[in-house]
Amino acid sequence: MDNVLLLTGRDLTVQDVYDVSVKGHSIEITEAAKKVLEESRQLVFDLVDSDIPVYGFNTGVGWNKDKKVMKEFFNQYNTNLIRAHCVAVGPNASVEEVRAIMLVRLNGLLSGCTGIQPAIAYKYAEMLNKNVTPVVPERGSVGEADISCMSHIGLCMIGEGEAYYERKLMAASEALAKAGIEEAILGPKDGLAIVSSNALSAGEGALVIKDVQDLLDTADMVYAMSLEGLNGNTSPLDPKTHEARPFPGQSYSAKKISEYLEGSSIYHADWKKPVQDPLSFRGAAHIHGAIRDALEYVEKYLTIHINSSDDNPCVILDERRMASCSNFEVTNWVLGFEMLGIALSHMSKISCYRTIKLSTPDFTKLPRFLSPADNVICFGTIQKAFASLDTEIRHLSNPATADYFSVAGDMEDHANNSPYVVQKTRKIVDNMYYILGMEAMHAAQAIDLRTDISLGKGTKAAYAALRSEIPFYSVDRNLTVDIQKSYEVLKSGKLMGEVKKAIEK
Amino acid sequence: MDNVLLLTGRDLTVQDVYDVSVKGHSIEITEAAKKVLEESRQLVFDLVDSDIPVYGFNTGVGWNKDKKVMKEFFNQYNTNLIRAHCVAVGPNASVEEVRAIMLVRLNGLLSGCTGIQPAIAYKYAEMLNKNVTPVVPERGSVGEADISCMSHIGLCMIGEGEAYYERKLMAASEALAKAGIEEAILGPKDGLAIVSSNALSAGEGALVIKDVQDLLDTADMVYAMSLEGLNGNTSPLDPKTHEARPFPGQSYSAKKISEYLEGSSIYHADWKKPVQDPLSFRGAAHIHGAIRDALEYVEKYLTIHINSSDDNPCVILDERRMASCSNFEVTNWVLGFEMLGIALSHMSKISCYRTIKLSTPDFTKLPRFLSPADNVICFGTIQKAFASLDTEIRHLSNPATADYFSVAGDMEDHANNSPYVVQKTRKIVDNMYYILGMEAMHAAQAIDLRTDISLGKGTKAAYAALRSEIPFYSVDRNLTVDIQKSYEVLKSGKLMGEVKKAIEK
Amino acid sequence: MDNVLLLTGRDLTVQDVYDVSVKGHSIEITEAAKKVLEESRQLVFDLVDSDIPVYGFNTGVGWNKDKKVMKEFFNQYNTNLIRAHCVAVGPNASVEEVRAIMLVRLNGLLSGCTGIQPAIAYKYAEMLNKNVTPVVPERGSVGEADISCMSHIGLCMIGEGEAYYERKLMAASEALAKAGIEEAILGPKDGLAIVSSNALSAGEGALVIKDVQDLLDTADMVYAMSLEGLNGNTSPLDPKTHEARPFPGQSYSAKKISEYLEGSSIYHADWKKPVQDPLSFRGAAHIHGAIRDALEYVEKYLTIHINSSDDNPCVILDERRMASCSNFEVTNWVLGFEMLGIALSHMSKISCYRTIKLSTPDFTKLPRFLSPADNVICFGTIQKAFASLDTEIRHLSNPATADYFSVAGDMEDHANNSPYVVQKTRKIVDNMYYILGMEAMHAAQAIDLRTDISLGKGTKAAYAALRSEIPFYSVDRNLTVDIQKSYEVLKSGKLMGEVKKAIEK
Amino acid sequence: MDNVLLLTGRDLTVQDVYDVSVKGHSIEITEAAKKVLEESRQLVFDLVDSDIPVYGFNTGVGWNKDKKVMKEFFNQYNTNLIRAHCVAVGPNASVEEVRAIMLVRLNGLLSGCTGIQPAIAYKYAEMLNKNVTPVVPERGSVGEADISCMSHIGLCMIGEGEAYYERKLMAASEALAKAGIEEAILGPKDGLAIVSSNALSAGEGALVIKDVQDLLDTADMVYAMSLEGLNGNTSPLDPKTHEARPFPGQSYSAKKISEYLEGSSIYHADWKKPVQDPLSFRGAAHIHGAIRDALEYVEKYLTIHINSSDDNPCVILDERRMASCSNFEVTNWVLGFEMLGIALSHMSKISCYRTIKLSTPDFTKLPRFLSPADNVICFGTIQKAFASLDTEIRHLSNPATADYFSVAGDMEDHANNSPYVVQKTRKIVDNMYYILGMEAMHAAQAIDLRTDISLGKGTKAAYAALRSEIPFYSVDRNLTVDIQKSYEVLKSGKLMGEVKKAIEK
Repeated sequence: MDNVLLLTGRDLTVQDVYDVSVKGHSIEITEAAKKVLEESRQLVFDLVDSDIPVYGFNTGVGWNKDKKVMKEFFNQYNTNLIRAHCVAVGPNASVEEVRAIMLVRLNGLLSGCTGIQPAIAYKYAEMLNKNVTPVVPERGSVGEADISCMSHIGLCMIGEGEAYYERKLMAASEALAKAGIEEAILGPKDGLAIVSSNALSAGEGALVIKDVQDLLDTADMVYAMSLEGLNGNTSPLDPKTHEARPFPGQSYSAKKISEYLEGSSIYHADWKKPVQDPLSFRGAAHIHGAIRDALEYVEKYLTIHINSSDDNPCVILDERRMASCSNFEVTNWVLGFEMLGIALSHMSKISCYRTIKLSTPDFTKLPRFLSPADNVICFGTIQKAFASLDTEIRHLSNPATADYFSVAGDMEDHANNSPYVVQKTRKIVDNMYYILGMEAMHAAQAIDLRTDISLGKGTKAAYAALRSEIPFYSVDRNLTVDIQKSYEVLKSGKLMGEVKKAIEK
Repeated sequence: MDNVLLLTGRDLTVQDVYDVSVKGHSIEITEAAKKVLEESRQLVFDLVDSDIPVYGFNTGVGWNKDKKVMKEFFNQYNTNLIRAHCVAVGPNASVEEVRAIMLVRLNGLLSGCTGIQPAIAYKYAEMLNKNVTPVVPERGSVGEADISCMSHIGLCMIGEGEAYYERKLMAASEALAKAGIEEAILGPKDGLAIVSSNALSAGEGALVIKDVQDLLDTADMVYAMSLEGLNGNTSPLDPKTHEARPFPGQSYSAKKISEYLEGSSIYHADWKKPVQDPLSFRGAAHIHGAIRDALEYVEKYLTIHINSSDDNPCVILDERRMASCSNFEVTNWVLGFEMLGIALSHMSKISCYRTIKLSTPDFTKLPRFLSPADNVICFGTIQKAFASLDTEIRHLSNPATADYFSVAGDMEDHANNSPYVVQKTRKIVDNMYYILGMEAMHAAQAIDLRTDISLGKGTKAAYAALRSEIPFYSVDRNLTVDIQKSYEVLKSGKLMGEVKKAIEK
Repeated sequence: MDNVLLLTGRDLTVQDVYDVSVKGHSIEITEAAKKVLEESRQLVFDLVDSDIPVYGFNTGVGWNKDKKVMKEFFNQYNTNLIRAHCVAVGPNASVEEVRAIMLVRLNGLLSGCTGIQPAIAYKYAEMLNKNVTPVVPERGSVGEADISCMSHIGLCMIGEGEAYYERKLMAASEALAKAGIEEAILGPKDGLAIVSSNALSAGEGALVIKDVQDLLDTADMVYAMSLEGLNGNTSPLDPKTHEARPFPGQSYSAKKISEYLEGSSIYHADWKKPVQDPLSFRGAAHIHGAIRDALEYVEKYLTIHINSSDDNPCVILDERRMASCSNFEVTNWVLGFEMLGIALSHMSKISCYRTIKLSTPDFTKLPRFLSPADNVICFGTIQKAFASLDTEIRHLSNPATADYFSVAGDMEDHANNSPYVVQKTRKIVDNMYYILGMEAMHAAQAIDLRTDISLGKGTKAAYAALRSEIPFYSVDRNLTVDIQKSYEVLKSGKLMGEVKKAIEK
Repeated sequence: MDNVLLLTGRDLTVQDVYDVSVKGHSIEITEAAKKVLEESRQLVFDLVDSDIPVYGFNTGVGWNKDKKVMKEFFNQYNTNLIRAHCVAVGPNASVEEVRAIMLVRLNGLLSGCTGIQPAIAYKYAEMLNKNVTPVVPERGSVGEADISCMSHIGLCMIGEGEAYYERKLMAASEALAKAGIEEAILGPKDGLAIVSSNALSAGEGALVIKDVQDLLDTADMVYAMSLEGLNGNTSPLDPKTHEARPFPGQSYSAKKISEYLEGSSIYHADWKKPVQDPLSFRGAAHIHGAIRDALEYVEKYLTIHINSSDDNPCVILDERRMASCSNFEVTNWVLGFEMLGIALSHMSKISCYRTIKLSTPDFTKLPRFLSPADNVICFGTIQKAFASLDTEIRHLSNPATADYFSVAGDMEDHANNSPYVVQKTRKIVDNMYYILGMEAMHAAQAIDLRTDISLGKGTKAAYAALRSEIPFYSVDRNLTVDIQKSYEVLKSGKLMGEVKKAIEK
């Protein structure tokens, strides 16, 4: 069956998250996973019957862990827990992001470590497949589980708050009704099971990882265009030099860039050229590669996370017990996102510096600011635009993960701020598309001003994709329009789509 | 005549900027100022006739300063200059902000240092008075004059791009037509005169200063409520202690807070209370005062700026000459905004810590999380919400002003990033209203749980304003709704409006 | 009498602090101030006799404020308090800094708000005048009074720990003995009176302010040299342009720089030169001026502080009572130091950019890297050295004041980190002297390579001061040696000393 | 033979670097590696005979790459190159660090990609084995190869500058003479071969990695002590919960901590205890584990680096050619160090928070501030000390890698600031030892105040190691002394040495 993801709890990938949340693929929980869900639930009931105090089951949560909850109040308590945990503030996560969050939470439940009511677990799947998407404000969690935000999904499940049905905003109860989904009735631990998860950060994070993967491909491509625009030297792409210091990312980027340049008049080294171009050109593959290495780190640990349990307490099926634990601590991949932001700050600076070089006759032997004629200002001011966006990126790349204070009666004296860290990385990616868009505008203009070059098979396609939206700059015009178009050609994936088609030919 | 601001070029205040841009007051240029405008223009023509190269008049701008512009091309050159300088990217400044920007630019022109065509200067006034507001994307300037953004105002003046007329978005030409304003015909230096100004940052900055003034008053007030909620000690407000270390801001805040508490059962010291409350309570007046001192610095220099010329070159009327200068360097008040952001980070932390204390029985002798009954969770999770917004503020408070690189053929090797610095301060203020809103919710709940206190005349009004929107928390409910309401009661000025009425009685 | 500072408690200046701590001036407490000290002490005894709980007198301090201290244990309690408050860690403050700290503390005591035993107060004066300087580790305080550090002064007074006598390290008891000073016997509140003060930060801060004042003068001077080296344009110094936007700092710097350049061949504008130099040259007076404005802010509030009481509780002599207060909150000037650090980051970048320009033939028409001959590398690598020090400055300029968490049983839930903020500013200043030193080396080399210029009266003296230590660069040599010498010529004040002599002639 | 490291160019580890640089092991270059060195050199001569321009061989370097160097001037040019590249500023790297730097450089040379004169390569080995250590100032490089610092090693080799012989500072020529080492005579490319390497950062970085490894072990151990001091809950160490979310670092830390606690009265869960301790206790293994994961990233890439070539140009032996490349770009592991700094900021905060908890009766049921008797202040002030060091760590954890500007005629428009990033991480580690030292003091005091516990086999040894230096706190004393001792017991490895002995028994 096409476009249906089989969910096992064990092998969800970042690409899967993207497919379900953005491309709208359906999901199906495997029978094995369903069995685990049911066994886990049964175990919890067995345990609670033995009167052992189980955190969040027959006790309160957080600082209230010393309060007991009686069986008769399980439904009321869990409903109230959902309501009182709704403390997040806007802006709201996008529909795609909420889908990612729900998917990640659902996959985590399949670990069998939660002890959730299986019917509640199935409701995530139903809502995803029938396009009911809760409104989830995305600020309000410090990342020790995103309980303040995850609660809003629970709120929708019990028919309160708001939701999107087929992308239309309405009362949650109405959305559920239209989709033919029954409102949930919460049992013991269900409230905690719904809220106690890092799925907001992990779900949004998975999408950011996908975005950075695409961004890196785009950056390699735009660099290839700029190298043509500069009529630059391809020697830093020499595979033997990458063997001499075998960092995986740089080798990969160098290989891809070479592929894009195949067939270009600069593909083979030319002894008449300067021995060495500026570092922003020479080191591009290495620096993009460093970002790939950093990304690989984040993806590795986030992928483990979304195929694991972040529940507390943790149901240990094979030993028929529950254990208090701290698997909601996700500091390793939060650190990775911080590193990634700093890495992208490097990408930004070298893109800006390359663009400046493309405007500078000393480096290109082309007219100043790539002006096509003597009285045309052309790219005389645009440097301020990308410079200011780079400043924002630098600012966003400052760490935030360890800026917290103790809350909840001094019980919660650690935090990692995963949501904000992920969200600022997302913002960096968006800015990067503007900056690469401006670089691509320069590269295309430089290419147009050269009469003596032929493009590589990748650069040719990228150039054409850009020029299909933005004409050659011949007379002065409102550049804000061009910048926006270039951003869109890149961010939408259109440019890389054309490149991939050309390369695969 | 009511609600008309007389514009002289010399005495514009932050309050004036607010009145014209937000409250919609009209403006009128004084006759004296008009005369200066005209003399200045004449001088420029006289000078250019003598064939002296005048930057941006008969030369190009920036790196193109070595290019000559012939008289015949003045109109074309200036029109092109406007277009090619449109390189800003969204989001767009709000209508209020664009009005502030235009007002500040106009007032600067009245210095007579610009040499702009008077008709262009009058067009700013006409557009302000007839509610034509250009669309101005607010990112794209590094602050060495906001030329990339100011250009969008010029674009509208010549009937290109988009604008709001009576807050409705349309083509700029249509907006001008509807308002009965003729499109501008640019002469020599008019392009430069329109773009070469820091008015984007200064205009937005003036509004942020007004916002911080209001925020400080609100923060003093919310603190007073919390002190009631804590049943705290008023001794740190003792005016004699402020005389002993006479920092102006702290004395002011202490005086205002005392005023708000007049009539309260905690107004006079009580020997049975703890000698000293936590520092977030004890030091509130001092810390708010420190922010007032920082704000005073920013306002002082920004006010000088908006009553001065930031033009380059600078027309020196009395000596009948022009001089190249660098009055577009606004680093002193940009530094002030950076300081202000750091200052507000302190405000945020003490508000958060006070709110935590209000949830803590050890400090209040009230129930944990201010819960009204045994099975009510109440404010058990909300601490994560304000903690996460505080983390954002801490992050935003990182400096950005000195993060730049050299652009424009290495000619522009300094920048101050004034727009971004102002805009991140604006974002901090917005977050602060959420945080103070949550503090106010706690203070009101604590007040409700006390049976033995009477409120001060200010706190009583503030409490009532809040309670008119948000009822006592008796059963668990979706707190996101309450948080949003509290934010709005505070940010809209409604709460302080009620307080002022009560105090003035 | 020469070199004796009369101490009143009311009019201590930053210059006074420098004179006493660095230049070794003596002090004398006025009779009026002594009287205040004695009256204040008497009042405390009168009050304690009435059995009112007075913080730190007959109660414990901090979280222990609920503990009572009986009269019989006053000496033991205060001695123990001093010992147990010794928790600071190294490095130690310099002898000069400890002197500054002691002077500031002493002046604060003269406010009469402390109620200290007068004999203890006089001991500060005696130790200063007889060159006994306690060892004070400078890390360990979060700035809510520097109690963890100030305690080490008390430790020395009671003859414990270590101290310098005439700059020789020895046991404190030995140092006191050699100087003929009796060990202190502590009475009630004396422990608190000694430790409860911001004098560490304020004393070190006063010296940093003096350093930045000198640095600014040096930076103006070095810029003047560079302008000669560039054969640049003096039009941005035109006083009429500074009248057009009257920021006080920029006018001052422009005036001083003009003074330094008087007599130079570039003093009067030359029409053959480029209309405008790069911003790092054009805007130097404006940016240095912005730093002056920022510095003025810090100095203003620090000066109020060192002439006030930062005690808690505060003795209110005229009303014959004590009040609990929070005058140990010094956030306003700590914010100022943060601003100053950011400001200096601007100074650093423009100095670096100017130096790069001096190496660049496009700007100077001199040989690349100012090489004196074809096979000499000269300043080809040094750019990495100042670039790396600039990176450090940028890093140091990140704020630290609001990074704290709640301590002392959640009672101390605010901090400002004044010591660290001051100390990182001090480090920035030191780095700046290296950077300006390298700029000066370039400026002098450029001047040497020009045959057609005559120097201004200030630049001539500065050039000569530098060249007296560092010869013309004619063949390649170890530049680390030159860099160190240039740093010393500048930092020691030798260069500015020569300039001042030349100017005053 | 014992304590001799065989150097191959391919398998150097961080531990090897530590052994040679700190423990003084000797090295021996394998014959195979020597052969590669010689072949590589021969190839370079063969190539230069064919008159191909080879960067840094018969051309200048950097911006001077367009300048030719004639054969006759090879020695003079390379000697001058070394001198003119000496632009670093102090402080100097430690003797251990310089040894690490030399070892790393030497191992890189063995890749055969450099083409250095073999005699020069052997000189590194000779100097290491005979204890001649050049003075290398450690600031001055932006990390695009540490040319400004590596030059100082070359300076020593040619008998200029200063060096340590057997840890005594003297003229380099004297040190060489005493050790019986001949001064080097530089041939073509030798200058570049000596300077063009990232070995300063990589060498210092390797030692920092070793430090962080030790620190992590210490932190696990101190946490175990604190858990005893708290009489806390070991359930978060449950291996089944770590299987449920298999992050490698957290599993490792949990396992080690459990090992340390074996035999303790808290080793097995106790149902009477609070279900859950504060997160700083509960999440310690997870957070330390996250730091381990981050460290693993840095070590992985640094290890590849120190076994690779970072030369430019790169000699490609098997294809008998040279290629211009950018293998001096080390952004991936610099990013890793930035991440590590942020990670350690988490370690710092949870250690601080744990220490606060140990002082708080609500959590320990022990006296406030762990005071042994009613009138003893004990740890009442020390919280400010570790809080202030934590603030420093937070500040140091701000990124610096992307803060650079373009140098060298705009050719070097990328940098990564590897030296500073490594050095600030080193500083963080040092502060961490103070913070953990204070935690350990609290843990030991808490343990002493409990009468009802028995220690684990690791904690018992750690406790004993600490108590051998610092007695039980029974009366108030100068705590600065204790803090320093505790720092030393931890940092010297003494404490962990005792633990390892106990565990291995």
